[in-house]
Amino acid sequence: MRIAVVGLGLIGGSIALAARERLAVAVAGYDRDPRALSAAVSRGAIDAAADSVAGALAGAEAAFVAVPVSGLAEAVASVLQSAPSSCVVSDVGSTKRAIVAANVDQRFIGGHPLAGTETSGIAHARADLFEGAVWYLTPTEGTSGVRFQALHRIISGFGARPTAIDADTHDTVLALVSHLPHVLANVLVAQAAAALREGGENLPATGPSFRDATRVAGSSSTIWTDIYLENRDALTGQIDDTVARLQRVSELLRSADRHAVTEWNEHAAAQRRSLLEAQLAGGELHELRVAVPNRPGVVAELALALGRAGVNITDMALYPAPDMSEGVVALWIAGAPDADRAQRTVEALGMVVFRP
Amino acid sequence: MRIAVVGLGLIGGSIALAARERLAVAVAGYDRDPRALSAAVSRGAIDAAADSVAGALAGAEAAFVAVPVSGLAEAVASVLQSAPSSCVVSDVGSTKRAIVAANVDQRFIGGHPLAGTETSGIAHARADLFEGAVWYLTPTEGTSGVRFQALHRIISGFGARPTAIDADTHDTVLALVSHLPHVLANVLVAQAAAALREGGENLPATGPSFRDATRVAGSSSTIWTDIYLENRDALTGQIDDTVARLQRVSELLRSADRHAVTEWNEHAAAQRRSLLEAQLAGGELHELRVAVPNRPGVVAELALALGRAGVNITDMALYPAPDMSEGVVALWIAGAPDADRAQRTVEALGMVVFRP
Repeated sequence: MRIAVVGLGLIGGSIALAARERLAVAVAGYDRDPRALSAAVSRGAIDAAADSVAGALAGAEAAFVAVPVSGLAEAVASVLQSAPSSCVVSDVGSTKRAIVAANVDQRFIGGHPLAGTETSGIAHARADLFEGAVWYLTPTEGTSGVRFQALHRIISGFGARPTAIDADTHDTVLALVSHLPHVLANVLVAQAAAALREGGENLPATGPSFRDATRVAGSSSTIWTDIYLENRDALTGQIDDTVARLQRVSELLRSADRHAVTEWNEHAAAQRRSLLEAQLAGGELHELRVAVPNRPGVVAELALALGRAGVNITDMALYPAPDMSEGVVALWIAGAPDADRAQRTVEALGMVVFRP
Repeated sequence: MRIAVVGLGLIGGSIALAARERLAVAVAGYDRDPRALSAAVSRGAIDAAADSVAGALAGAEAAFVAVPVSGLAEAVASVLQSAPSSCVVSDVGSTKRAIVAANVDQRFIGGHPLAGTETSGIAHARADLFEGAVWYLTPTEGTSGVRFQALHRIISGFGARPTAIDADTHDTVLALVSHLPHVLANVLVAQAAAALREGGENLPATGPSFRDATRVAGSSSTIWTDIYLENRDALTGQIDDTVARLQRVSELLRSADRHAVTEWNEHAAAQRRSLLEAQLAGGELHELRVAVPNRPGVVAELALALGRAGVNITDMALYPAPDMSEGVVALWIAGAPDADRAQRTVEALGMVVFRP
């Protein structure tokens, strides 16, 4: 078997490494940037460095297009031009509606692995980058069953979990759980900056909510301008929904209906739990809040004790007090037995545990 | 000197303990709940348990009203009725506009310490609860200078940082940096739950942004229904501002103006940095992302090594991979020298560090 990879950055390089190391197949690679191409050779990611897209595609049974979103449409078209008739072609772009609509070709199946957003470049490529990751595939009515099966097997072979999803639904879900939170973060910092500047006030150290809500504000424009623009149809739909929901909350608060406000808040609590639990194995999530002195090593002491007790920390956040003299560590632990064991362990260190 | 404390929960109890232990003054306490009152005596928080508000106020030079928001207006009125003419009276409610407007009395100055939201009850009261915390005071034109000075000295004596702020501005700032993020979190989980249920999809493990943005969704209604209702004027104003801003973003995205989208995103990045840096001592915040195997003890290993290297972690978040096999730990470190030392320390452990 022979696989072609066009675009040898973090994702393309990791696909090439996984194909060679985990599937033991031959990989031909092409990248417009000769430095990326030679780095892929010296990292052992590809068997053959092609000097054109057509060269990489010669004899390929599968091809992955892993170039940046801005050049993706052109690259997919070029790959489909050169790909053998039996080849399956996929991409790794983070939005799917446009690319799938533009390539009605029974050889093409859109793809999007949820991995590798933290680093970039072939230097960080790893054969195990996709281990356990959801890898969305967007087959259409015209998709050939044989080709879907071939792609599914390759992606499973990388250790990923191939998950079929309609391209429209894919873009909506990503808009909702990733792109919209980034928009809200951007809006919130802008609003705070404007209001505080007006009042001549500094941001008070009011606790975790503002910091959490704005952590991703102004994420790298190199990545995010493309995402915002590519997915603008689904994203603006979600923004409009948020606007309508906020207007209803504003009305609810103006009505001062205590019972309805409580009901709205309790509903949000239940929805958050059910969304997170559906996502995570290991049972219901329990939150423990621990008051700790904010000195070097205290998080280590805490985590080390939990590690010794065999408790895994699903999620964690550290909130310092305004003067950095102490803080609260919030821990999320899956399953009541582990959460109880965690509480006993932390209390044995002499720290106060609060379960909200 | 004699101080009266009405309401002996976490905040009132901590005020009483701080007054006795740090200022060495006599404290008279009253609580409607006789169990709280006797617990305050046995914890050594008060010298005298009064059997009425008037009893606690007899001879007091300062009084703190620390009852829940729902009973606050009544309690402040009752304290002002009994307070000696030279007494300064303050409260600890989390919104200030209404209580200040309702009590035009030169003895009353509104207050709000930013501390103690994690636990409740006299059992968790501590003399050092306010150490380093901002404690807002809302003097008005009618406030007596002598009384403001007395209250300022007492609060400084508790180790807190008294910060004068106009009551309206206080409520706006808190709406913006605390109450609004809670509303956005509630809206976002509701929207995601509705959309995902409709599409029959689970929440994909897309990374940190959704989890961060919804961490405070559905916070305790016992506290938050009161806050939402008490501060609904300022909060609905902020919600309306968010709505207007989101509508502008929606238009911006529909215009597909690449340059303007990048500019908007870069502006948010700059605003986030300047807001956080204004808040934190120690210089510019640096973010380090570390890829780690998600096994018990790994956070300990990381934090312990940083502790040994003398690096303090200002903020931290752990993002597990979908299958829990590995994760990314985001660390925020104040100041370039510490951030560089942290990077060298982590890399010496054989972990990959990415600086976004």
